[in-house]
Amino acid sequence: MKKGNLSTIEGGVTAPKGFLAAGLHCGIKKSKPDLAVVYSQVKAASAGVFTRNVVKAAPVIVTREHLSSGYARAVVVNSGNANACTGEQGLADARQMAVVTGEALGIAPENVVVASTGIIGVPLPMEKIVPGIAQAAGAVSETGGSSAARAIMTTDTVLKETAVSLEIGGVPVVIGAMAKGSGMIHPNMATMLSFITTDVAISPALLQQALKECADRSFNRITVDGDTSTNDMVVALANGKAGNPLIDSQGEDYEKFKEALEYVCVTLAKMIARDGEGATKFIEIQVVNAGSEEEASLIARSIAASNLFKTAMFAGDANWGRIIAAAGYSGAEFDPGKVNIWLESSAGKEQVTQDGVGLSFDEDNAALILKEKDIKVLVDLRQGGGEAFAWTCDLSYEYVRINAEYRT
Amino acid sequence: MKKGNLSTIEGGVTAPKGFLAAGLHCGIKKSKPDLAVVYSQVKAASAGVFTRNVVKAAPVIVTREHLSSGYARAVVVNSGNANACTGEQGLADARQMAVVTGEALGIAPENVVVASTGIIGVPLPMEKIVPGIAQAAGAVSETGGSSAARAIMTTDTVLKETAVSLEIGGVPVVIGAMAKGSGMIHPNMATMLSFITTDVAISPALLQQALKECADRSFNRITVDGDTSTNDMVVALANGKAGNPLIDSQGEDYEKFKEALEYVCVTLAKMIARDGEGATKFIEIQVVNAGSEEEASLIARSIAASNLFKTAMFAGDANWGRIIAAAGYSGAEFDPGKVNIWLESSAGKEQVTQDGVGLSFDEDNAALILKEKDIKVLVDLRQGGGEAFAWTCDLSYEYVRINAEYRT
Repeated sequence: MKKGNLSTIEGGVTAPKGFLAAGLHCGIKKSKPDLAVVYSQVKAASAGVFTRNVVKAAPVIVTREHLSSGYARAVVVNSGNANACTGEQGLADARQMAVVTGEALGIAPENVVVASTGIIGVPLPMEKIVPGIAQAAGAVSETGGSSAARAIMTTDTVLKETAVSLEIGGVPVVIGAMAKGSGMIHPNMATMLSFITTDVAISPALLQQALKECADRSFNRITVDGDTSTNDMVVALANGKAGNPLIDSQGEDYEKFKEALEYVCVTLAKMIARDGEGATKFIEIQVVNAGSEEEASLIARSIAASNLFKTAMFAGDANWGRIIAAAGYSGAEFDPGKVNIWLESSAGKEQVTQDGVGLSFDEDNAALILKEKDIKVLVDLRQGGGEAFAWTCDLSYEYVRINAEYRT
Repeated sequence: MKKGNLSTIEGGVTAPKGFLAAGLHCGIKKSKPDLAVVYSQVKAASAGVFTRNVVKAAPVIVTREHLSSGYARAVVVNSGNANACTGEQGLADARQMAVVTGEALGIAPENVVVASTGIIGVPLPMEKIVPGIAQAAGAVSETGGSSAARAIMTTDTVLKETAVSLEIGGVPVVIGAMAKGSGMIHPNMATMLSFITTDVAISPALLQQALKECADRSFNRITVDGDTSTNDMVVALANGKAGNPLIDSQGEDYEKFKEALEYVCVTLAKMIARDGEGATKFIEIQVVNAGSEEEASLIARSIAASNLFKTAMFAGDANWGRIIAAAGYSGAEFDPGKVNIWLESSAGKEQVTQDGVGLSFDEDNAALILKEKDIKVLVDLRQGGGEAFAWTCDLSYEYVRINAEYRT
């Protein structure tokens, strides 16, 4: 697939030059893969964006320390256990995961990114993880991207990976990525992890800047700032193997890279929203003409997070009152008397409010629109030039079932 | 029932001297009562607390205007239609409701409090409401409290009213109240209305001050500030018929009144949480030893609003990780390494975390505790002296069903 100057390609995190990966079952879960290792053949500039939750899982604390150098060589991730609220033992275990990975790959433990996802408050079964890491590190390969992506899934129902190729400085470069996350569509849900690999040559500082901006326009549009899990983490590794002129200042090359990185992050974010726990529908909320981008974002995310809106979408009910009410308590200022709202899908488009007042719209057409799996809600505030998106899914019986049964 | 200096009595909003009420079916809903009128035989000091939603329903706008004088004589409420997002027509209809009520009762329309609850964005069927008001105003009686309380219900499954008697300034006084609300247990749900009547003699300014403080410690503990519906309203009318010395300054009498008012408001707030849409369990969250009352409240409400926590309670799953995670993203600052958490009910008490780390607690006992209908979660932050409560219910399949089918 071509999108502007980008081509979507296969391979996930092992699509860029010099990245190897593997995923396997080490025994944290009953039978599904639960351990992944990603390895860069050379030192990679590295950047991370982490949960803002006051309660931070041990791997988040360890990885932040390790990334302070600006460089890393490997990522080790387990699923099935979050290693959160596990005290000193948890910290020791996370450090031990880095040590074992480093030994197996012949690199310093400080160059290993550690991540975990799963149940909170249970000590890691290190007797399974330690041999598992050795095995995974021995198995990394240029075609292991998907197996790594599979091993970081929890309640995810689909594997989430993507990769794009483009040209920077006259040189072909690749960005690959994998993510997990299914419960976090609503603000306060389970962990979102994403790991991005690229062979682009870029300085750690600019990689961090690009990652922060792109995460705000992608992953942070499916979650709400501050309402993050104890384990959320997005980490990017750039090993420079593509051989482009090093990006160490803003400019055309940086912008090209950032654009591609944003495309990758948005692709993964939408995959996560689409795979929301119990989701039967994917919903995009677009807010236009708000007072600012920030206000547009507040409103879009407030609608996306509304249980009432999400259950209405599950029912295919054009209950726009819940949309405007959620906009109203978002914290953004706007004139309710100016709001226009449309519902849209491949089945058509229907305006449901004009000037903040309900239209006697075609209910049959609205029902047809909302029967589709991909819904768009367009909210025009007619205030200023601010625009933002949010992505979410509907709230179904299945959501309740999954989360009522998760631990037991 | 006696509670300190208070006795709980029958009669709801018509328990205090000089208040009459009626409720009936006028045709907004298919067959259930949908219109209530409350009337004070004499002018009553009045106070109100309203939704902070940017999108305000027409009756909210009209009632705020009417209460600016500090006095009122009557309340008219319809259920089945929120008269929100109904534009100029909605405002005209809300004013018309006050006019018709005033004419029927022989009082000025500015002395009428107007409230609505129900679906958003549909014009009121005034051809049914106008004759309905005339009929209800003609039917008000000293025993009509319950019929009024019944007529303001929407998805509520139980009628919500209470009344207490006490002595102020050597004189017996009564506070009565009714409320509706079922969907708003989670922050962004449907409307909460509460009307409080009392024969206490108190100035409008002090009534307003007392109501504001009490609402913050009751109704605002089942919702989150700002996350209110378009129609939320708590209004108090104090007609002075008890003959106590007028409370027009702070002091012992004011404190006695405020304490009783808080008791009434907390009673109603808990009734609302207990009757949450699809609720199978009532949950009290108590946060102690936080840095401040405000921080305690942030944490308690963040836990109460967590879908993941609420589905775990539905399943009877002692998933304390969701409790500490919700505390962590509440916005309050605390040391996660100091947090102790207990689960409690009539079946027993079990500590599940110590110093922020999971205990290997007795799962069987925890399961027994969580089988009960009334659950308490106690979170001890060991930081300072701040304490607060929040009340909520579990999140069940039934919640999804109710909200998926509400409009259609």
